[in-house]
Amino acid sequence: MTRLAAGLAFGAALASGAAATPGRDSGAEVRALLEAQVAAWNRGDLEAFMAGYWRSPELVFCSGATVTKGWDATLERYRKRYQAKGREMGRLAFDAIEVMALGEEAAFARGAYRLRLRDGSEPHGLFTLVLRRFPDGFRIVHDHTSAAE
Amino acid sequence: MTRLAAGLAFGAALASGAAATPGRDSGAEVRALLEAQVAAWNRGDLEAFMAGYWRSPELVFCSGATVTKGWDATLERYRKRYQAKGREMGRLAFDAIEVMALGEEAAFARGAYRLRLRDGSEPHGLFTLVLRRFPDGFRIVHDHTSAAE
Repeated sequence: MTRLAAGLAFGAALASGAAATPGRDSGAEVRALLEAQVAAWNRGDLEAFMAGYWRSPELVFCSGATVTKGWDATLERYRKRYQAKGREMGRLAFDAIEVMALGEEAAFARGAYRLRLRDGSEPHGLFTLVLRRFPDGFRIVHDHTSAAE
Repeated sequence: MTRLAAGLAFGAALASGAAATPGRDSGAEVRALLEAQVAAWNRGDLEAFMAGYWRSPELVFCSGATVTKGWDATLERYRKRYQAKGREMGRLAFDAIEVMALGEEAAFARGAYRLRLRDGSEPHGLFTLVLRRFPDGFRIVHDHTSAAE
C-alpha cells in the first residue's frame, strides 16, 4: 500500500465514527490551507502564512524542547528567525503530506518541510499539525516541528 | 489561565461537537496510558511500554527529520537506542501533559519528557501524540518527538 493509500484508509477509519456531511472533505480543506501557507511564505508574506494558525493565545508551537504559546508569540518567533537582519525566508516546500480526519471537527496532518536558502543550505525536518474546524474553516491549533538532528 | 485550565477548556471545546458518552473520559484514559508507559519504561520493560502504541504497520514515529513506520520498526528503534550494548534506558519522567479529546474516537496529547541517565546527562524534549480509541482502549497512532537542539 502506498503511503497515500495508507493515509486515506486511516482517515476513513477515523472518520467512520461520525456521520458524513455531504460536501465536506477535511483532507482537501487541510491540503488547501497548507498550499496557501506555502504560497504565502514564498512571496514573503508572513502574516498570510500565519492566517493558517488559530489566532488565539492557546495556539501551541513546539520545536526542539521549546514551547511557544499563542499566535502573537508564534508570529514573533517566525519574524526573528526569518525576517530579522541577515535572515531570509528562503523557498519553502512541503512533501509527503498525509491528512487524517479525526471525526468531523478536527484533523491532523504530518509531513516534511524543506527550506532552500541563498547560501545553498537546506534546513529541513518534519511537522505534525492538529487542526480544528472553526466557522470559517480549519485552523492549526498545535504545531510540532523538528529539524534534522 | 493556567496551562491545565487552558487545556481543559480547549478539550471541552473540541469535544463539544460530539454527544457525550457517560462514563467515558478520554483525558483520564490517555493519562492512564501514559502513566503505564512511564512505569513500564522505568522497570526496563520495553514491550510493556510499546503496548501503548497501535500494533500496526501504520503506526508512525517522527523524530528529528526521521520517520519510523510501523510498530515493529518503532520497537527496534527503541531497542537500538536504549537496550543495545553500552546503552541504558535511564529513568523517564513526563511533565506538562495536556490531553485534548478530538470527538469521541480520538485525542491528542502533548508534553515534555526527560530521561535521567547514570552519567548525569538528561536528554529531554517534547512530544505530540495522536491517539485513537480501539475496542480495547486508546492507542498512540502517531508520535512526534523532538529533542533539545
